Amino acid sequence: MTNSYFPRPVDVKINMATGELDSPDSAYDRKLSQMYTMYEDQEAAQKLLGADPVIYKVYEKKLPELPGELQWCMSVTLPGKVGREYYMTKGHYHSVRETAEIYLCVAGEGYMLMETEQGDVEIKEMRPNTCVYVPAYWAHRSINTGGEPLISFCVYPGHAGHDYGSIETKGFKKRVVEIDGKPVIIDV
Amino acid sequence: MTNSYFPRPVDVKINMATGELDSPDSAYDRKLSQMYTMYEDQEAAQKLLGADPVIYKVYEKKLPELPGELQWCMSVTLPGKVGREYYMTKGHYHSVRETAEIYLCVAGEGYMLMETEQGDVEIKEMRPNTCVYVPAYWAHRSINTGGEPLISFCVYPGHAGHDYGSIETKGFKKRVVEIDGKPVIIDV
Repeated sequence: MTNSYFPRPVDVKINMATGELDSPDSAYDRKLSQMYTMYEDQEAAQKLLGADPVIYKVYEKKLPELPGELQWCMSVTLPGKVGREYYMTKGHYHSVRETAEIYLCVAGEGYMLMETEQGDVEIKEMRPNTCVYVPAYWAHRSINTGGEPLISFCVYPGHAGHDYGSIETKGFKKRVVEIDGKPVIIDV
Repeated sequence: MTNSYFPRPVDVKINMATGELDSPDSAYDRKLSQMYTMYEDQEAAQKLLGADPVIYKVYEKKLPELPGELQWCMSVTLPGKVGREYYMTKGHYHSVRETAEIYLCVAGEGYMLMETEQGDVEIKEMRPNTCVYVPAYWAHRSINTGGEPLISFCVYPGHAGHDYGSIETKGFKKRVVEIDGKPVIIDV
């Protein structure tokens, strides 16, 4: 085997029941305190802040952040609610807007909520073995409506980057809340 | 929901036991007659050409072939051998060399064989829930060393394209063959 200036292949084993990697380069928890303002019911959010539950987790390998290259991660949204609203990821646009993302749901149940800055909205059901293509220009958020972790294998272009600020400021146009024991999509 | 000039999200359900999609836009079989010259044992290959077995299958959705966008497919390499050499995909570089690919093995067992035009070679084991990152500039081939289909979920940049010709002409520098009932990696 000769030396090369190119990046070398990387293989990882994934625990699909937990989303954990056998050799993660990065793993982080997103707690309620880091995103509580995004929830509809601020009184319920404040009450939970003492316990500050983990809302979602991300496990990833470090790969080149370059156009043409790819990043991948495992996204694990935990089950739970803030008031009547289901646990969800912060949601983000890509910093480079013209970059897509592919989600393969491997466990759990929920939704992928997507919208564009022009006002388009789409929501797709996430179930094990569902693949959702999030095109370029669409912000996206995972929402867990089930009783188990919602786990997805996610792939996006190396140079995509994450823009959380736009969603923090404006929010999404829809929420998913529990009404009469069932998930219901409502307008904000 | 308003109209938009952007591509819209696409969701698909995958049968992970077969690789089939509930709504494929494209599905093709690669038969031995389309790649028999790639095998080590040309006498064995000629004998099988009458039956012309399917060596691998690909199922995919039609997505934008643009930089920043992503393509994904299911790759299904069937179990079998030509002489002592295991069934394998033709293997390819991307037409746009500076584009990577991510493989998530979902079923079966085998190898991902990779090499660069500069002479680097790497081979990674493929098992269910193994993710292999194939960096930009690396040709790649799936090889099924087991008794069941080797099935992978594959993601690559929208504009990557496929260059099969370079591999057809030069071949890979390694083969995987059965010796004493076990897969062995040999030099060409």
